[in-house]
Amino acid sequence: MAYGITGNPHKDGIWQPIAELTRWLHQRDIDFCLTDEIANGLLSRDLVDQAFCSQYTSADVASGAEVLLSFGGDGTFLRSAHAAGLDGPPILGVNVGRLGFLARVEVNETIAAIEKVDAGETGVEERLALAVEIEGDARGLQGMYPWALNDLVVDKSGTASMIAVEATVDGLALNTYWADGLITATPTGSTAYALSVGGPIVTPQVDGIVLAPIAPHTLTARPIMLPGSCELEIHVTTRDHPYVLAIDGRSGIVQPEEDLVIRVRRASGVVRLVTLPGEDYFKTVRTKLSWGQSAVF
Amino acid sequence: MAYGITGNPHKDGIWQPIAELTRWLHQRDIDFCLTDEIANGLLSRDLVDQAFCSQYTSADVASGAEVLLSFGGDGTFLRSAHAAGLDGPPILGVNVGRLGFLARVEVNETIAAIEKVDAGETGVEERLALAVEIEGDARGLQGMYPWALNDLVVDKSGTASMIAVEATVDGLALNTYWADGLITATPTGSTAYALSVGGPIVTPQVDGIVLAPIAPHTLTARPIMLPGSCELEIHVTTRDHPYVLAIDGRSGIVQPEEDLVIRVRRASGVVRLVTLPGEDYFKTVRTKLSWGQSAVF
Amino acid sequence: MAYGITGNPHKDGIWQPIAELTRWLHQRDIDFCLTDEIANGLLSRDLVDQAFCSQYTSADVASGAEVLLSFGGDGTFLRSAHAAGLDGPPILGVNVGRLGFLARVEVNETIAAIEKVDAGETGVEERLALAVEIEGDARGLQGMYPWALNDLVVDKSGTASMIAVEATVDGLALNTYWADGLITATPTGSTAYALSVGGPIVTPQVDGIVLAPIAPHTLTARPIMLPGSCELEIHVTTRDHPYVLAIDGRSGIVQPEEDLVIRVRRASGVVRLVTLPGEDYFKTVRTKLSWGQSAVF
Amino acid sequence: MAYGITGNPHKDGIWQPIAELTRWLHQRDIDFCLTDEIANGLLSRDLVDQAFCSQYTSADVASGAEVLLSFGGDGTFLRSAHAAGLDGPPILGVNVGRLGFLARVEVNETIAAIEKVDAGETGVEERLALAVEIEGDARGLQGMYPWALNDLVVDKSGTASMIAVEATVDGLALNTYWADGLITATPTGSTAYALSVGGPIVTPQVDGIVLAPIAPHTLTARPIMLPGSCELEIHVTTRDHPYVLAIDGRSGIVQPEEDLVIRVRRASGVVRLVTLPGEDYFKTVRTKLSWGQSAVF
Repeated sequence: MAYGITGNPHKDGIWQPIAELTRWLHQRDIDFCLTDEIANGLLSRDLVDQAFCSQYTSADVASGAEVLLSFGGDGTFLRSAHAAGLDGPPILGVNVGRLGFLARVEVNETIAAIEKVDAGETGVEERLALAVEIEGDARGLQGMYPWALNDLVVDKSGTASMIAVEATVDGLALNTYWADGLITATPTGSTAYALSVGGPIVTPQVDGIVLAPIAPHTLTARPIMLPGSCELEIHVTTRDHPYVLAIDGRSGIVQPEEDLVIRVRRASGVVRLVTLPGEDYFKTVRTKLSWGQSAVF
Repeated sequence: MAYGITGNPHKDGIWQPIAELTRWLHQRDIDFCLTDEIANGLLSRDLVDQAFCSQYTSADVASGAEVLLSFGGDGTFLRSAHAAGLDGPPILGVNVGRLGFLARVEVNETIAAIEKVDAGETGVEERLALAVEIEGDARGLQGMYPWALNDLVVDKSGTASMIAVEATVDGLALNTYWADGLITATPTGSTAYALSVGGPIVTPQVDGIVLAPIAPHTLTARPIMLPGSCELEIHVTTRDHPYVLAIDGRSGIVQPEEDLVIRVRRASGVVRLVTLPGEDYFKTVRTKLSWGQSAVF
Repeated sequence: MAYGITGNPHKDGIWQPIAELTRWLHQRDIDFCLTDEIANGLLSRDLVDQAFCSQYTSADVASGAEVLLSFGGDGTFLRSAHAAGLDGPPILGVNVGRLGFLARVEVNETIAAIEKVDAGETGVEERLALAVEIEGDARGLQGMYPWALNDLVVDKSGTASMIAVEATVDGLALNTYWADGLITATPTGSTAYALSVGGPIVTPQVDGIVLAPIAPHTLTARPIMLPGSCELEIHVTTRDHPYVLAIDGRSGIVQPEEDLVIRVRRASGVVRLVTLPGEDYFKTVRTKLSWGQSAVF
Repeated sequence: MAYGITGNPHKDGIWQPIAELTRWLHQRDIDFCLTDEIANGLLSRDLVDQAFCSQYTSADVASGAEVLLSFGGDGTFLRSAHAAGLDGPPILGVNVGRLGFLARVEVNETIAAIEKVDAGETGVEERLALAVEIEGDARGLQGMYPWALNDLVVDKSGTASMIAVEATVDGLALNTYWADGLITATPTGSTAYALSVGGPIVTPQVDGIVLAPIAPHTLTARPIMLPGSCELEIHVTTRDHPYVLAIDGRSGIVQPEEDLVIRVRRASGVVRLVTLPGEDYFKTVRTKLSWGQSAVF
């Protein structure tokens, strides 16, 4: 089993655990590799030496890895997933900080989790991703991700008021939203931004896409669940202000004269997650969202 | 083509249109039959004569029919669907009163719609139904429907305060809801009761089940979308009051000593709807829910 | 200082604390009296003797008391408040069980709280109550409270579907709600039932009334805040089913033929709460509703 | 009676009605004056001549006016109100376009409305305004309004993720919101932006302030209603991105290093609205928000 190791270098809490993990893997002759960024971070903190780094660093940790370890939070997991690409190795999110929906292994349980991977006790869960195709040019959109594991968002830019967003499904007019913005979310993204605007929680097995307006200026606009097989077109028709397009948290500005049509459909590839024995989506939801009797009013 | 004709006898507006339709069908020698109830209603209003009735009445309009016409509203459609049974003939809902999500043909367009059926210009759409299995005995539940096209609801009885409802999915604890009640809805039912408590609109093609609490006494309880393939168990644990169980609007009282487990899963059969050319789910949604610019505030 | 002591006899947790408190008060020659129910409960548990009971029991604990102690939860507090009447003695809610919005003293801090009362370190907070006047006769409404500290609710009875409720404010039509029901809440009641249907939290100092529909079958119906000075009329126009009327949790059934007009206005009297030093409405809200960073998703 | 006339020069629909009104007033020798902007607009469209303009233009239409006419929509009304200042003349909003909450006179009823003003048949309604005091310097906030008739908003800037906003009421911690933003609204503003994020409708007579988070990343954050007498402090604690501050729609950017405390309290002055006979706040609400039976689902 070969492990790729990546993480969020801005989180101080990742270095000691990664250093320990690499020593543990090294001692057992288990194959692994680090991203440059992680290797340099370990080196600059004197947690490993140069020789160790040279041995175990790779420009592309995902391609050779059978499991990709992502140290950080859910945001880090998203970046790791995009670095790995669709249909890449299954990812194990190690949570440094607050428990995440994607980064579900506590950092002090990393080695226990690796032992389970090695023992073949873990599984793999596939998550729907949304392929995004943008018709038209926009200077501000270099470096956007080509697909979303969580969501695609069009949003008014800061000082503007609402925008008008036309949504079309399989060529049929769905609605024009007058709102701060519109979130297109996968089941995975349903517990992220979409949840904050009243979208439903969608279990990962549902083959569907959530469309949820942000602060709609019509009381009748409600979140809608579309089939995973549909093709969605999003078109911001407001022309007096720039707006923001964000895919999995990476965003750019679209200028008023840049008239884009954004096409979204289920990607042909998926993102894979390592699942641990006894892991349970609903338990994560209950924990993260503080479900339970203590909150009854 | 053989037509079964049923409807809601409590709606005065159905009789003239049904009488006209039957004359029209009769003149063209198109096969059709009426339920006893409809036949008697026409007869008592002198809209048809006894001979006509005798010729065209059937105890089971659904079994012989290739298309079932349901005159009334969405509630009538539900009753017609249950009368026809799962995997019955496709149903054409003729709307007498306000436009419905299911009863989508305006009454004055009935004959035009029949002509399209006859010309082979119509289609058939399948709708997911939920099979309901109740473990335990409850005296008040005779006559409940065995499946739901819209929804299954557990609800506090009127004078009680909230109930506690445990929900389990595929054997895993989902949540205990402290609420007025809990709605389990199909995509079809997502635009009915579930919508009134903040549930998402779910397009009919989505293979999923909505679980939406009614007036939850925890702020973190949100609507959740489960996969159509799951098995859901619902268990009201409150024992100091009776509660109400309703399936597609037909309801009964469950007594405190009657400890039921309600199992819900996707039915093996479906309900079929006649679709007219140019018909469009989103147009119905926009019309019914008053989407549009005039409501922007 | 004279204390009236009441509580919820169905909560086992009240007896030891009340017994201890009474001994403590007796030893210090501080005047107090118990309701019959509390006295009998203590006696039957051998926590006090007959002589003690005879000395300290009163048929009307509120009238002589300068402070009324209510042992239980928020529901007990409501009953104690109604037993005391409007403009009665200030009430100190001792919380046996989960922390309440009204029962805010933990049971093990009862004596510490009494010492503060005696030392003059406590304050009094006035809460708006709603006077309810019912025009028309309804057999099922005997024993309803004549005013509400929390809320007045009209609600469909269990097996019915929605009701239509007309609301008029100062003689002007406000809205007809097609809904499961309609909640009229005080600021105090805004964190009870009204909150579960999406009503706003209203701080006790606001002179206003919340009107919040339960499961409205129109997407545009939203909670509305009316001025405390208004006169509200509520009229259930649905005539095919009984409905439920509840005031502060005490409810009765109104039959279809009983055509009532329910008039609600701010009561001339208030309910008084003892406030402890350092007590803080917002802290209670944060605690009860689990506000805080740990719940950020 | 002297009329000040202002309006939104970007709305083509205002010019003919204003020209007609000025002729009508001129013929009747009723005193009035126009803003420079309106006078120039009329002149450039050849709707009036230079002499007419010279006679009737004033640099300060509000100070001499007994009634201020604002031609446009609700946004125009806000600008007119700020131009007039607190405790200025009562404003009559003439609606060019869609009906507004503030601009309530249809443009073709302008002269009829003026006749009612002249006949003494109209009234005056006072609206609560919020005084805003900003502690700390921010380069981007020149030209902000010093008070709000609708709302004060802090909002993430476009490409950022959520911000953390601490709110303090009368020196007591209320909550830290992790959200897109936080809206502080008057009753007047309750039917604007605050409504789009789930805030309650607040009738103008309520002496209260709505605090409503935008897309909160905690499920327990709900709109809260504070008393008009309170002092609110708002403090954006996120320091990694700029944020946006907007008062009645006029906005500026606050940089990360600009650590502001925003203090909000009820202004000592009010905004006055002309009310027409038979005008009715609830009717406006019903019309604007499409309340009514046709929307029952």
